Amino acid sequence: MTIHDLAKAAKVSVSTVSKALNENGRMADDTRERIKRIAQEIGFRPNALARGLLSNRSFTVGLLTNDTYGRFTLPVMAGISEALVDHGVSVFLCAIEDDPALGKIHVDAMLDKQVDGIIATGKRIDRALPVDLTGLPVPVVYAFTQGAPDSVTLTSDDGHGGHLATEWLQRLGRKKLVHVTGPEDFSSVRDRSAAFRELAGQDAPILYGPWSEAWGHAAIEQIWSSGADRPDGIFCGNDQIARGVVDALRERGVTVPADVSVIGFDNWEIVAGQTRPPLTTVDMNLKELGREAGLMVLALAEGKTVEPGLRRLPCKLVVRQSCGGDGLLR
Amino acid sequence: MTIHDLAKAAKVSVSTVSKALNENGRMADDTRERIKRIAQEIGFRPNALARGLLSNRSFTVGLLTNDTYGRFTLPVMAGISEALVDHGVSVFLCAIEDDPALGKIHVDAMLDKQVDGIIATGKRIDRALPVDLTGLPVPVVYAFTQGAPDSVTLTSDDGHGGHLATEWLQRLGRKKLVHVTGPEDFSSVRDRSAAFRELAGQDAPILYGPWSEAWGHAAIEQIWSSGADRPDGIFCGNDQIARGVVDALRERGVTVPADVSVIGFDNWEIVAGQTRPPLTTVDMNLKELGREAGLMVLALAEGKTVEPGLRRLPCKLVVRQSCGGDGLLR
Repeated sequence: MTIHDLAKAAKVSVSTVSKALNENGRMADDTRERIKRIAQEIGFRPNALARGLLSNRSFTVGLLTNDTYGRFTLPVMAGISEALVDHGVSVFLCAIEDDPALGKIHVDAMLDKQVDGIIATGKRIDRALPVDLTGLPVPVVYAFTQGAPDSVTLTSDDGHGGHLATEWLQRLGRKKLVHVTGPEDFSSVRDRSAAFRELAGQDAPILYGPWSEAWGHAAIEQIWSSGADRPDGIFCGNDQIARGVVDALRERGVTVPADVSVIGFDNWEIVAGQTRPPLTTVDMNLKELGREAGLMVLALAEGKTVEPGLRRLPCKLVVRQSCGGDGLLR
Repeated sequence: MTIHDLAKAAKVSVSTVSKALNENGRMADDTRERIKRIAQEIGFRPNALARGLLSNRSFTVGLLTNDTYGRFTLPVMAGISEALVDHGVSVFLCAIEDDPALGKIHVDAMLDKQVDGIIATGKRIDRALPVDLTGLPVPVVYAFTQGAPDSVTLTSDDGHGGHLATEWLQRLGRKKLVHVTGPEDFSSVRDRSAAFRELAGQDAPILYGPWSEAWGHAAIEQIWSSGADRPDGIFCGNDQIARGVVDALRERGVTVPADVSVIGFDNWEIVAGQTRPPLTTVDMNLKELGREAGLMVLALAEGKTVEPGLRRLPCKLVVRQSCGGDGLLR
């Protein structure tokens, strides 16, 4: 019987239960009495240590992001919420723009609400949020954004993702591989490219461009009109590029996956699921990343030690139809 | 010179300023002194009324949603944040699933953080969130979700959007119109359909199906193989359906917009902008809807009166290339 069970039975937050039992905090008398009555009914007895810990906690974690589009932040948030709800902790998201003064004000508002910890997340892993989170009175965990030196930072393992994609094409017997990807100034692009060349050979062609469907079309135009050997396997840097590639191939009468296997990156359902054929792609496990970040910030809030440093979480392959070979999975 | 200017100058939240000036709340002494010093430097003097109001406010608004995908909630949140940041108010988003017990716990956590008000939002305007928000000690505004009776509710005007789309096709000289849309049990589908028939005639064909690209393809197959008169203008219930329609027409050798004008709904950049040609579409103004919801909850928190009832906000037309006729705008 935990305080979370009691909170669920009383249909209030853990924080409210904590205040009721510790006789502090403003609260209607009948709420306090009701919680105490239910505690008695279900036989809840916090030990002294738990009472001490509870009285200093607000059971709230703040999530800070500059990804206003939500492409990366929403899966991360879903993972955090899922991990923390069983611990009676609510997650509050605060979206900051790229304005440092504004960021500082929002962080201050979070501290003012006495969050137990803050998780910072963003839209790319090699850029920091425009606000300094060092030296705060609460623990901070960075997830899918650049962390401060010596911080606890979780990120996707793009090299691993690049390996998974290239290896899958090779297992399907594809030999002439091309990588069509995003701008080279992204560390994720460089990590995926390095993994691709490690398996496909140091001369395997890589085409860099914007993160868009239009670039997928343009890349196919470039490859098909160059007179060079045509690929039988294309690893794309994201699902949008892959969608453009698949459409451009179909319009040239090239069949995917019979003639060419195409693999994407991101597993963004709205794009990957609607491509014809639907995309085999690499999933960065952002929900799992959020889950782990949530558990880490919780551990820190409870006074446990978490080794600082950068942790790279493995990706996973999601097989649909754009590469063929789903028989290999059975 | 307002308290917001002071907060910005001191780089803290309005709530922190309020506590510093009112000599309440826990705070490091040097923070309090620094704020007072800056207040003196910039000549900030709150009047008695303002001090009274300030001391009861937390300068935080809670946003509650069950739209875990974020398609509708993120623009609403951006609008709320934009409207409230100038008032020194931070917005915290809390994502609830469709579990009422969980919803109640998260609302309780918001109240526990003493938010000044709550805005409820969701993924469709004819469904309520799975949690009862009546009788709370703070004001509640509903935005893009079904409100409680006699509540302050803001929603999109789908009839207006349907008019805009149909009227645009007619202004371009299109006479044989078809509406390909989502499931009929959505009130938004019924409102858009009614507007379509009001302008296009009560016998104008409407095809209902799922909210997907695949349905756009299937609808074109159905129309083109039926032997019936082929349309020269197609109004689609969302951008995904429109994208499927445009692709299916191109694959049949029908040119968009020369032969057929196609218009979407939602203005979801990732879909509308990447369609070939890019989609002319109806924008529900969700950011503006968020902005107004933010200002209303703020007014209520400040003790002002806001007339309860349902307010429908107008949509706007976003012209790209899928209908032709951008010359009409000049």
